[in-house]
Amino acid sequence: MNDKPIVSTSRLEAFSDGVIAIIITIMVFDLKLNEVATADILREELYKLLPKSGAYVLSFLMIAIMWVNHHQLLHQIKSTDRSLLWLNMHLLFWISLLPFCSNFLGANPYLPIATMFYSIVLFMVALSFTWIRSYAVRHQLIIESVKQKSHSKAVRKNALALILYAASAMLGFVSVYISFFILLLVPAMYFIPEKIEHS
Amino acid sequence: MNDKPIVSTSRLEAFSDGVIAIIITIMVFDLKLNEVATADILREELYKLLPKSGAYVLSFLMIAIMWVNHHQLLHQIKSTDRSLLWLNMHLLFWISLLPFCSNFLGANPYLPIATMFYSIVLFMVALSFTWIRSYAVRHQLIIESVKQKSHSKAVRKNALALILYAASAMLGFVSVYISFFILLLVPAMYFIPEKIEHS
Amino acid sequence: MNDKPIVSTSRLEAFSDGVIAIIITIMVFDLKLNEVATADILREELYKLLPKSGAYVLSFLMIAIMWVNHHQLLHQIKSTDRSLLWLNMHLLFWISLLPFCSNFLGANPYLPIATMFYSIVLFMVALSFTWIRSYAVRHQLIIESVKQKSHSKAVRKNALALILYAASAMLGFVSVYISFFILLLVPAMYFIPEKIEHS
Amino acid sequence: MNDKPIVSTSRLEAFSDGVIAIIITIMVFDLKLNEVATADILREELYKLLPKSGAYVLSFLMIAIMWVNHHQLLHQIKSTDRSLLWLNMHLLFWISLLPFCSNFLGANPYLPIATMFYSIVLFMVALSFTWIRSYAVRHQLIIESVKQKSHSKAVRKNALALILYAASAMLGFVSVYISFFILLLVPAMYFIPEKIEHS
Repeated sequence: MNDKPIVSTSRLEAFSDGVIAIIITIMVFDLKLNEVATADILREELYKLLPKSGAYVLSFLMIAIMWVNHHQLLHQIKSTDRSLLWLNMHLLFWISLLPFCSNFLGANPYLPIATMFYSIVLFMVALSFTWIRSYAVRHQLIIESVKQKSHSKAVRKNALALILYAASAMLGFVSVYISFFILLLVPAMYFIPEKIEHS
Repeated sequence: MNDKPIVSTSRLEAFSDGVIAIIITIMVFDLKLNEVATADILREELYKLLPKSGAYVLSFLMIAIMWVNHHQLLHQIKSTDRSLLWLNMHLLFWISLLPFCSNFLGANPYLPIATMFYSIVLFMVALSFTWIRSYAVRHQLIIESVKQKSHSKAVRKNALALILYAASAMLGFVSVYISFFILLLVPAMYFIPEKIEHS
Repeated sequence: MNDKPIVSTSRLEAFSDGVIAIIITIMVFDLKLNEVATADILREELYKLLPKSGAYVLSFLMIAIMWVNHHQLLHQIKSTDRSLLWLNMHLLFWISLLPFCSNFLGANPYLPIATMFYSIVLFMVALSFTWIRSYAVRHQLIIESVKQKSHSKAVRKNALALILYAASAMLGFVSVYISFFILLLVPAMYFIPEKIEHS
Repeated sequence: MNDKPIVSTSRLEAFSDGVIAIIITIMVFDLKLNEVATADILREELYKLLPKSGAYVLSFLMIAIMWVNHHQLLHQIKSTDRSLLWLNMHLLFWISLLPFCSNFLGANPYLPIATMFYSIVLFMVALSFTWIRSYAVRHQLIIESVKQKSHSKAVRKNALALILYAASAMLGFVSVYISFFILLLVPAMYFIPEKIEHS
């Protein structure tokens, strides 16, 4: 055994799974209907729930995409070291802020600062993914059979997402509808994760 | 290694376990008794807790059934692909709405719209299970030794559940007791998951 | 492969771990100090926190004991079947009620009905453990090398715990201090899980 | 098989991962912005959020460090026994108190008693780590190839952390800024976990 033992990614995956599972699940507890007395109050309550439900569905979709991409990325990584653990923690930190931003956006859907917060967090998540990938490529932690072309493609896709999130953060001050459009565009683009090419 | 690597179901199981474990557990935090001063207040508080406890027990049972069926279904699947990951996410999304519906039903047990919400979510969960199964069968992701007969039986059982949930969603507007009866009938029917026949 | 495939206990363990981890952790969120303005309010707030902290420590200890015993019990079981999955769900259901009872007891430490609820839940947890063990013994799901003597010992210990919890549930109406004494006695007795004797 | 079977650390890791994942994630739910009507209220709300966000970032960092160190420590341990399970539970208990202390500190950043609580919990966490390590060394549960020198180094580092946390707990009564400085110093020192030397 040498000084730098090969540490498998299994506990890293398990911990990340736990954190992501909690984040994706627990947002639903912001959706609450109070005890309802009359039909009028019910209608009003359900109406107020609409933007919150929209924010919930969007955030669920975003976190689901993150998990699928995380799953696919770690599937290509053969071992971890301390720096990768910390880069992963950095990713989880930004993902953990999503419920806060989602809750803020759901309560204030027409506030530009709410779409800005939401977009910045997504920007930082995309940046964290790029860092993990490029670190793993630079330090030969990637499975050899995965082609360089796949990485270039993923990096290009990530760069596009970063630009779009930055645009969404700023253009919300022109109109929040532009932000909403961009925030829905990126998941559509990411929905099918990039194909990995093995040699 | 070829272009479409065999991805094991283990991380899919782990993530689903995490999500389902959180959902089933965290509903209990809607059961709360405030600080109690006199015996009268206590009696009133406990009385108000009754429908909430009923909704908790029913939802715990429903989610437990879902977990056992999920466990059994994934046990028959030998590998996953991207579409299966997303079909599973779709299933988890609907399961994640159950605490919201359970809380709404527990606070308003005699409101037909509450039983309708609850029934619709269960309908969508059953539909998601059907989609996962039929996708896995169509794309040869199922362990070969499992007989076709087992699938036909499971699909028939699922179809019956779908009809019953749809009936429950609508008949609650006639009487919520009909909905309650149906909502208790389906778990009784599902309680023992179908036997898998291996050749 | 035959009609009744051997299902490993690994996913059962993982799901139970998830549920128990959530329950043991999330109780801490009932411990909250409001924003504090003056030293007097702080003293009062801290004083009100005392019984809640006591209930937290007791419940943490109880759930930790349950996890260690669950860990040890499943370590002796070589495979699961459907009934065992359901017996385990039954156990998890009762464990899931502990945060509710703990919160109720912490807010009303001198209310006999609070110690009764707490004791009944612990009684049902102990009963569920006994059912799992005896089912596994009856259906040959236990690792062969574990001696019969170990089971008899565990069953006797469980029977004693059941009697003590039943006593605690009732004697709280005489004095809650008797209940507190018994509730502290049982964990002391269980603290070191029984030694497993292998042949 | 003999009387004291070798129990792998995998379920201990899984349970600890679950507990730590929940603790690190769920603190974000204390960050909440209420529905915001005017720009003035928004500014005020965001201003009040500042110390809470600071406490969240600090606590996330602290728990991340704990997880990385736990990961590294358990990686050196080859098997567990009952005492180790309980020492690990003791560690998890103190980690579980961090969200409470973080919430208290975030709401009252200039209260010496808040920094004291926070420091004491970190002190107990560091002490628990020391106990697990020294128990594992004393009972030959450590992988043989790990050199004694690595342990001595880790123990020295831990001792320094203990002294600093104790200082932070007391010096907060002189000035909370001294406490803040120390609380930021220790993670900086711990950030890169000690190198394990294998022979």
